[in-house]
Amino acid sequence: MRINDNIVALATPAGAGAIAVIRVSGPEAVDIVSGLFEAKSKKTLKEQPSHTIHLGNIMDGERVIDEALVSVFHGPRSYTGENTIEISCHGSPYIQQEIIQLLIRKGCRSAEAGEFTLRAFLNGKMDLSQAEAVADLISSENAASHQMAMQQMRGGFSNEIQRLRQELLNFASLIELELDFAEEDVEFVNRDEFRDLVGRIQKVLARLIDSFAVGNVLKNGIPVAIVGEPNVGKSTLLNALLNEERAIVSEIAGTTRDTIEDEISIGGVGFRFIDTAGIRETEDVVESIGIKRTFEKISQAQVVLYLSPLTPKGGINESVISEIEKIKNRFPQKPLIIVVNKIDLLTEAQISELQKNFNAIEGTQLLMISAKTGEGVEELQQKLLKFVNTGELRNNNTIVTNSRHYNSLLKALEEINKVQEGLNQNLSGDLLAIDIREALYHFGMITGEVTNDELLGNIFANFCIGK
Amino acid sequence: MRINDNIVALATPAGAGAIAVIRVSGPEAVDIVSGLFEAKSKKTLKEQPSHTIHLGNIMDGERVIDEALVSVFHGPRSYTGENTIEISCHGSPYIQQEIIQLLIRKGCRSAEAGEFTLRAFLNGKMDLSQAEAVADLISSENAASHQMAMQQMRGGFSNEIQRLRQELLNFASLIELELDFAEEDVEFVNRDEFRDLVGRIQKVLARLIDSFAVGNVLKNGIPVAIVGEPNVGKSTLLNALLNEERAIVSEIAGTTRDTIEDEISIGGVGFRFIDTAGIRETEDVVESIGIKRTFEKISQAQVVLYLSPLTPKGGINESVISEIEKIKNRFPQKPLIIVVNKIDLLTEAQISELQKNFNAIEGTQLLMISAKTGEGVEELQQKLLKFVNTGELRNNNTIVTNSRHYNSLLKALEEINKVQEGLNQNLSGDLLAIDIREALYHFGMITGEVTNDELLGNIFANFCIGK
Repeated sequence: MRINDNIVALATPAGAGAIAVIRVSGPEAVDIVSGLFEAKSKKTLKEQPSHTIHLGNIMDGERVIDEALVSVFHGPRSYTGENTIEISCHGSPYIQQEIIQLLIRKGCRSAEAGEFTLRAFLNGKMDLSQAEAVADLISSENAASHQMAMQQMRGGFSNEIQRLRQELLNFASLIELELDFAEEDVEFVNRDEFRDLVGRIQKVLARLIDSFAVGNVLKNGIPVAIVGEPNVGKSTLLNALLNEERAIVSEIAGTTRDTIEDEISIGGVGFRFIDTAGIRETEDVVESIGIKRTFEKISQAQVVLYLSPLTPKGGINESVISEIEKIKNRFPQKPLIIVVNKIDLLTEAQISELQKNFNAIEGTQLLMISAKTGEGVEELQQKLLKFVNTGELRNNNTIVTNSRHYNSLLKALEEINKVQEGLNQNLSGDLLAIDIREALYHFGMITGEVTNDELLGNIFANFCIGK
Repeated sequence: MRINDNIVALATPAGAGAIAVIRVSGPEAVDIVSGLFEAKSKKTLKEQPSHTIHLGNIMDGERVIDEALVSVFHGPRSYTGENTIEISCHGSPYIQQEIIQLLIRKGCRSAEAGEFTLRAFLNGKMDLSQAEAVADLISSENAASHQMAMQQMRGGFSNEIQRLRQELLNFASLIELELDFAEEDVEFVNRDEFRDLVGRIQKVLARLIDSFAVGNVLKNGIPVAIVGEPNVGKSTLLNALLNEERAIVSEIAGTTRDTIEDEISIGGVGFRFIDTAGIRETEDVVESIGIKRTFEKISQAQVVLYLSPLTPKGGINESVISEIEKIKNRFPQKPLIIVVNKIDLLTEAQISELQKNFNAIEGTQLLMISAKTGEGVEELQQKLLKFVNTGELRNNNTIVTNSRHYNSLLKALEEINKVQEGLNQNLSGDLLAIDIREALYHFGMITGEVTNDELLGNIFANFCIGK
């Protein structure tokens, strides 16, 4: 694809700030900006070396739009691989718009979402999975999703795929060569070596496919259902869990209007806390709907936290035990942690009485905490973290987080399994070659050797403008 | 003031974007960032020349936090005048925070609001009025406020003040020299020349003080009261007025909860449209309060637009005429424009009937428009612009927009008037010197030759963090 136009976009978040950065990329990027920039040094911008910064005025004819810093990047030594200019101007939305409009009048075009990264891909600065990781990196909200995106952007994932693909490609070429000499009945491909490669590819694919379960959860946060009425101390509990300095709190509207999900980060892993109502016995229709919804949410969660209220005397109601039993009956496999807050207000006798009551319910874990004194909070954090298999992440293994990659890996494995079957049945080279080509196709879809406009459109539409 | 610590802040707006810029300034800024940056080129950052850009990884020990572009500025060739680093990283709030926290662990301190610009002022990179213009520039929302801030930032205002101050200072020194030779009765100062200077200063001060009325209005937008019930077509009118491509629309909450102000830009000038209810006869207490409020808002406005509803037959109600007359009686000097929309639906006969009705009200202007076809809309825009004296702006005159400057100018003029009086009364040099020193003090307050911590604190508290 030949790219011959110049694009412009705001690269920093919209709104007022100290500074804003406007990015211009394309064959004439430097010339265009040079034509409207008066450097303090009186030097001509387009004669300046790459990776240098220049102070001066952005001029619309005689009118000064802003005093700005202009960074010059000559292609291919730039993010996009093209000539690129970054204008660091005062962060007024008015000034941002004036400069962008000026650049459009001077021949630039408004960049579409992800177009800078698309160009970086098309110009061979990164492969497709690395380009996708850029968007993941920008939206990463905690240490785990950040590490996975960083690993993918730095090529950990595609290196592995590329290496296997290259080996497979070599065998494919040799097998196809056999076809040309079909009448002579020679074998260029050592079938044992090939069988060995197929085995290795299967192993790697299986590992990558398995990692998706972990990757998906780490990327999107672990869903934790909290069962408990609004006044039972949910926000107190969340705040107590949040005591790590750099945790991120956000409130995102759930799928239904009456659900609020809190996302917090514990030990670098995101947890999505899904608030649910209780599930008491009721004949009220509205409440019945609430109970149905609570069960739905529990079924989506990986862990259930049951926040137990205390009676004024520090005991528990019978209804609590019955609610917990109902959840256990419905979801016998789902980990359930019962949390009792405010143990700082209880006597030793009350605590052991509580423990006795709850221990009667099989398959649950009881945790007594004091959000006020912090007692038990770290234990709860550790319990939650134990549900996440972060082993792969710690060992720097490649983890698949992208469902597009996951699907391609599944399809590649399917084809590789056919190749193996074919080998076992001593199929001829021409038949093997068909399945190998299919497998290669799916490998190529991941890294972008095989691609099409629709696929690229879908991928880069998820980017923000300016990246 | 000796500055010996290093500050860090996010310089771009908060939130996710393609990129974010983190700014570090201080004596060790380059050394600190150099210690946690691995350049792709393997070069050591702190050995790089000023105004160069380097690609590499921001490292927290062995962990890669981000691949980033790092710009190096060696003081005094930087915004603050100190060694400065700008880190252009991926725009994830998580990454931004990780990098800022890392820099704080490595010895930086979180910058306070406006602290980079404060340092620029303290290091002599700009005077105080220029520093104040930086904040105005960032908050500028239309061509007029932008031009005024830009002019001030580029020193138009302070140059004028500085020049007068210098001349006055020369005379002050000479007069004080006379005091040393008091017994010899010599005059180092030519009283006529001095009288001439005082006259020139008075003229300039008077012009600057007068310009504040225009400046203030241009900076904050011209208040226009719209009288009309909610369903009379106010938003249709505003949208029609907005047809210029680059106008900025925003909704800002007014001082009272039930008031919404729309700000739009016409011909590069901001207009604040203040919505008011009607003012019909009423005995209802609630409505009476509404009427009182409407009158209050009209008194704050520079222009009143009266949106007249039409009867189903295309005529007007008697009550409309009576409302308009009430406004005219209360505010005889306030320009009042009566706007009738939807003339595209009226016959010629209906239009001339309407004109006859409204012409009966003295001191008003009738404008018939069609928001749908655009007829009359430009005429309305021109009418509104005519209320703004943009002559000074067009002629590139210095305009005062800052009330602090305005107050200092008033006080300086007061002292200069005393000097003139003293000259007229042939006062002795020592008495003249006192008033001259006072005037110099107020000049110095504007440009920052005279300053104190409280003043600086007040000024820079209005800045955003990172500037």
